[in-house]
Amino acid sequence: MPADLPPLTTTDRTRVRRAPARASDDRAEAYAILDEGRVAHVGFVSEGAPVVIPMAYGRDRDRLLLHAARASRLARTLAAGAPVCVTVTLLDGMVLARSAFHHSMNYRSVAVVGTAVPIAGEAERRAALDVLVDHLVPGRSAEARRANRAELRQTEVLALPIDEASVKRRTGGPVDDPEDLGLAVWAGVVPLTCVAGVAQPADDLVPGLPAPAALIQWGAGLTS
Amino acid sequence: MPADLPPLTTTDRTRVRRAPARASDDRAEAYAILDEGRVAHVGFVSEGAPVVIPMAYGRDRDRLLLHAARASRLARTLAAGAPVCVTVTLLDGMVLARSAFHHSMNYRSVAVVGTAVPIAGEAERRAALDVLVDHLVPGRSAEARRANRAELRQTEVLALPIDEASVKRRTGGPVDDPEDLGLAVWAGVVPLTCVAGVAQPADDLVPGLPAPAALIQWGAGLTS
Repeated sequence: MPADLPPLTTTDRTRVRRAPARASDDRAEAYAILDEGRVAHVGFVSEGAPVVIPMAYGRDRDRLLLHAARASRLARTLAAGAPVCVTVTLLDGMVLARSAFHHSMNYRSVAVVGTAVPIAGEAERRAALDVLVDHLVPGRSAEARRANRAELRQTEVLALPIDEASVKRRTGGPVDDPEDLGLAVWAGVVPLTCVAGVAQPADDLVPGLPAPAALIQWGAGLTS
Repeated sequence: MPADLPPLTTTDRTRVRRAPARASDDRAEAYAILDEGRVAHVGFVSEGAPVVIPMAYGRDRDRLLLHAARASRLARTLAAGAPVCVTVTLLDGMVLARSAFHHSMNYRSVAVVGTAVPIAGEAERRAALDVLVDHLVPGRSAEARRANRAELRQTEVLALPIDEASVKRRTGGPVDDPEDLGLAVWAGVVPLTCVAGVAQPADDLVPGLPAPAALIQWGAGLTS
């Protein structure tokens, strides 16, 4: 990751208001979180009320990519230029303090706000879908059958610039009040990790077809 | 879990529009997802734009509980009666199909919408904070020092009725088009699980204080 990436843009919408010490405008940190996460929580406004939907996503350089059935409310709303907030959160641990008040969680999160733009052009749309598939499992787009024209037609692919965005994270142990440090209450961190289990072949898989090396490496990487 | 829980209420806001076979109004299923999750993504509208923030939460019977610093934008917005959408998602696996188009994720999610109500009364607020702490680690509220008056004053505790809500989930293997089943492309599911690592005591822990039994059991439960 180059060290000279420009910082994220902080605005009233992305400024972290609480615990600013946990905030960052470091673009490389944002990219690392986005690349490690699998599920984005995508928020938009529908008839004045908030809607938050879990979605797959991908990152292509400074663009966050989303896709949805073209006929869906989400695709139609975003393609029409509605403001969106896409938040990705990695949970790293439970923080147990002596006091209930200072219990917390260790996490890393990115919120990207702005307006998503539909990607036009068949070649660019195919490339974006490759990024989405490779985000699930690196290298997977080269193995799977690529989208045909009918599938492409059904799918809206949207790009949200990763610019107006903020990182927020907590790391480290509990921070108790000095007067609580002598309490006989266990305090510390329980780390949490997302691990991949043994790949389960489809029931109707062509007999004898091995799991791809990329998949096995990826799974091993996750569990380490 | 009693089998006769009333179903969730489906409205235009909570109706699952895409892939309705993945939707459910089963209250027991919603409770199970909420009880297993740790992070909620809380969406609200601020100056016309969506904001999605990761937060801890808890469940007390048919109420989803949130807490935030009373001076925070979130607490002030929700306490003023703004509509909110709280989504909790558990990621269960990556679904690799022969075709890029049918790649997917196995997940379970709940979205609860409505208006959160600040909990008044010191005793009720303390009880709600106990639920939030016990959601992190069961039984923890009985071990930790409970909130004092100053801490209670700083904390807004909000209850969102779990009523207007929907469950959406995907399970099982890839669903490929019949014409793709003969392709020599590996297909299947890579299961993903959240596991707890070894509890890390705080640097300044009272020497010799063991980790509580509840914590060890809880961690072992997560990794199984």
